[in-house]
Amino acid sequence: MAKENKSFVKEITPQSEDFSRWYLDVIQKADWMDYAPVRGCIVFKPDAYEIWERCQQELDREFKRTGHRNAYFPLFIPESFFEKEKEHVEGFNPELPWVTEAGGDILEERLAVRPTSETMFGHMYAQWIQSYRDLPVLLNQWANVVRWEKRTLPFLRTSEFLWQEGHTAHATEDEARAETMQMLEIYANFVESFLAIPVIRGQKTPSEKFAGAVDTYSLESLMKDGKALQTATSHYLGQNFAKGFDIQYLDKDNQRKYVYTTSWGITTRLLGAIVMVHGDDRGLVIPPKVAPTQVVVIPIGPAKTRETVVPAAEQIVASLQSAGVRVNIDAREDVSPGWKFNEYEMRGIPIRIEIGPRDLENGQAVLVRRDTGEKLPVPLTQVDETVNELLATIQADMFQAAKNRMHEHSYVADDLAALVNYIQNERGLVLAGWCGDDACERAVKDACSATSRNIPFDPPAQPKHCVTCGKPAQYAVWFAKAY
Amino acid sequence: MAKENKSFVKEITPQSEDFSRWYLDVIQKADWMDYAPVRGCIVFKPDAYEIWERCQQELDREFKRTGHRNAYFPLFIPESFFEKEKEHVEGFNPELPWVTEAGGDILEERLAVRPTSETMFGHMYAQWIQSYRDLPVLLNQWANVVRWEKRTLPFLRTSEFLWQEGHTAHATEDEARAETMQMLEIYANFVESFLAIPVIRGQKTPSEKFAGAVDTYSLESLMKDGKALQTATSHYLGQNFAKGFDIQYLDKDNQRKYVYTTSWGITTRLLGAIVMVHGDDRGLVIPPKVAPTQVVVIPIGPAKTRETVVPAAEQIVASLQSAGVRVNIDAREDVSPGWKFNEYEMRGIPIRIEIGPRDLENGQAVLVRRDTGEKLPVPLTQVDETVNELLATIQADMFQAAKNRMHEHSYVADDLAALVNYIQNERGLVLAGWCGDDACERAVKDACSATSRNIPFDPPAQPKHCVTCGKPAQYAVWFAKAY
Repeated sequence: MAKENKSFVKEITPQSEDFSRWYLDVIQKADWMDYAPVRGCIVFKPDAYEIWERCQQELDREFKRTGHRNAYFPLFIPESFFEKEKEHVEGFNPELPWVTEAGGDILEERLAVRPTSETMFGHMYAQWIQSYRDLPVLLNQWANVVRWEKRTLPFLRTSEFLWQEGHTAHATEDEARAETMQMLEIYANFVESFLAIPVIRGQKTPSEKFAGAVDTYSLESLMKDGKALQTATSHYLGQNFAKGFDIQYLDKDNQRKYVYTTSWGITTRLLGAIVMVHGDDRGLVIPPKVAPTQVVVIPIGPAKTRETVVPAAEQIVASLQSAGVRVNIDAREDVSPGWKFNEYEMRGIPIRIEIGPRDLENGQAVLVRRDTGEKLPVPLTQVDETVNELLATIQADMFQAAKNRMHEHSYVADDLAALVNYIQNERGLVLAGWCGDDACERAVKDACSATSRNIPFDPPAQPKHCVTCGKPAQYAVWFAKAY
Repeated sequence: MAKENKSFVKEITPQSEDFSRWYLDVIQKADWMDYAPVRGCIVFKPDAYEIWERCQQELDREFKRTGHRNAYFPLFIPESFFEKEKEHVEGFNPELPWVTEAGGDILEERLAVRPTSETMFGHMYAQWIQSYRDLPVLLNQWANVVRWEKRTLPFLRTSEFLWQEGHTAHATEDEARAETMQMLEIYANFVESFLAIPVIRGQKTPSEKFAGAVDTYSLESLMKDGKALQTATSHYLGQNFAKGFDIQYLDKDNQRKYVYTTSWGITTRLLGAIVMVHGDDRGLVIPPKVAPTQVVVIPIGPAKTRETVVPAAEQIVASLQSAGVRVNIDAREDVSPGWKFNEYEMRGIPIRIEIGPRDLENGQAVLVRRDTGEKLPVPLTQVDETVNELLATIQADMFQAAKNRMHEHSYVADDLAALVNYIQNERGLVLAGWCGDDACERAVKDACSATSRNIPFDPPAQPKHCVTCGKPAQYAVWFAKAY
């Protein structure tokens, strides 16, 4: 048994040795994905996909609660559509896959496989929206999108990925801006409370904003290797797409006016964020709220005691199921308990329950937390209650631990040398002043590969000078290396 | 008000005048879809998409109950994959769209946009399945697929559509065949009990089976114009894909063996079926179980009574909502009740509740059934109970009505002349004997454009002779014109 453990644990590269290798080891060994035979594409295997389904259910309920409805728009976008918004075409053209033949014929106009659907929604909205009575239009779609990027990484940046894209049209700028912020806040609450991942809310600098947006807002989170990941974006598009696609409405004052639009999205890269924020050298650690399996029950002890131990374990399972817990049992006899412990730790199941003959004599079972390793003997009569409390505690503790980590790895830099030092030697997020000049932002990237993440709504400090040029700072900006 | 009604009703072509026109009128006026700017593609608008979501929820629960899990496989399939199963490539090649350029480069190998994913699942299964312990593999995916067909029709046959595709691998033929039949039965129960559409379960003839299948089973339903629609298919693929993709496992007897696979799917064409089975000259009629809105409450009467009537209507809504009914109110003042009646009839809302000042005096409201037009005055204290009963009654009655219609339009033909007469003059389903020869099946099609729908498991008669050649019949086959 000890032997199995060792050989097994060896298979995951420690985070401290090579974080990227650790990440790739974990997602494959935990059976979350496999590489597909198409460049940069992966197969989302059931354990990962089920987490995505739970994210969908949770977010979809919030979208509907705030008045949005789902629809489905075509995968293919005619080439001419991209030309209608200048920044948009420049941003996305290099990444597009093109369908040039279909049904045995060469197409007259090439069709892009959608990288995002502002153009398609824009085209349809122009036909649907005639009067102020038609506004607002609040639609969302769950879909696959494709971006043929040079460097890919499973979940975080794949050629094809899954996401939702909300597209709304409003009569006024105020309303569209309120929508943009409302959706960012829905994302923030979801990512923090459901995925236990702390976020920084803020605005992207012009160089980092969405191609075609007036303003892009983002959530930024810190991974365990000190790199940042953008976990959600919400765009205020102003009248850019309204003008490109001629989306006008007749207002109450009998004037024709352009609408104001927004778009907002969250993607399957969240799966990668869960791994990189919570995982450790033993494997995944999945937040209870999103875990497909929250508890695994493992009967232990010598073969001759199975007759009494397994039924007791099954009773725990049945009871937890009635209490609304997602629970499995692993009573296989051809695999050792030690192997199972490692296996379910690697898969990140929040709670393991061990029960053996001695536990049974004492009328108890042992709960083991995945996040802390803590072992809690619990009377059999109190298992349901304790598990439900413990799941909530684990969820809260995981969030707090991630939050503490983020604070510990947040720095404030007064000048470029200090910023570079933090990025290269401490790793993490560095807050710095910025004058607003693109060149000063670029200088940071050139110096240490860190990019501006966002201009936080609520910065922990207000640096006085631009980190590059020393002129008065207009903004406090978070810089970090990023995925 | 009467004037509004008239002009409104005029907009829908009567079914008897031109069924195809009626269909296109209804789905557009009920706001279910719009034509997209890509050949053969549509936008699925919220009312239609929400029905698809309800179908998904219902089926997904059944899939999971029977041990399946969801996953997600890539959209793009390398050209070489199609070559590995001969019949498959011949069946699908003419309909494929090809990505030939991506990210600014010409691709070395063209990528098909998936028309179905047997090949991609086959490729991955070959890597995942090593031992008998890995079997069965029971996966499903909800996805978009593309088939570049010559003639398209909204919902029924669009270039891009949404579906689920189950793909399973088994150790034995028996197990794979049992899976194939289990899924067909899940579909049949779903289509009949949830969509109120009666189905004929049966097996496809060789000429109509799925490209690459050993046996294809289908559900066939009758539309109101007498044409048949295939509402679901389940395929027993034998070892065809296992051999094409080399999916082998090491059995308990230490022998390497090919697996047996199945695939099964249901698509957004179901939305078209709902329209064509239940709709009438006033518009859609949606089965209560799948209706996004089951009840609409409309306050009526002169303006001066609104102060009392509208709050009473709102109370009905609140009460129905607590009773689990999906209910809306339309209390708009700038639109007449008559206009609203027509609007919600066209949208197919199962029950309309009218409440006016006189109703209020009598302590009642009036329930109006969409399917029969029947009006039921109900005491306000009994609205919740009556609505819930009535929704169940409507669901059952709609199924029974469709079933009666199917029986009324089912015929048995002894020879080709009789068959052609039924198809051309009576329209509907014609049961006939068949010797099993492709040429005899083709002769039916040449004579009247009817194709074999399926060989029913439970035929209402057993014709003795082949409808074409008169030799002894091996099978009883349903023929019909089909979508």
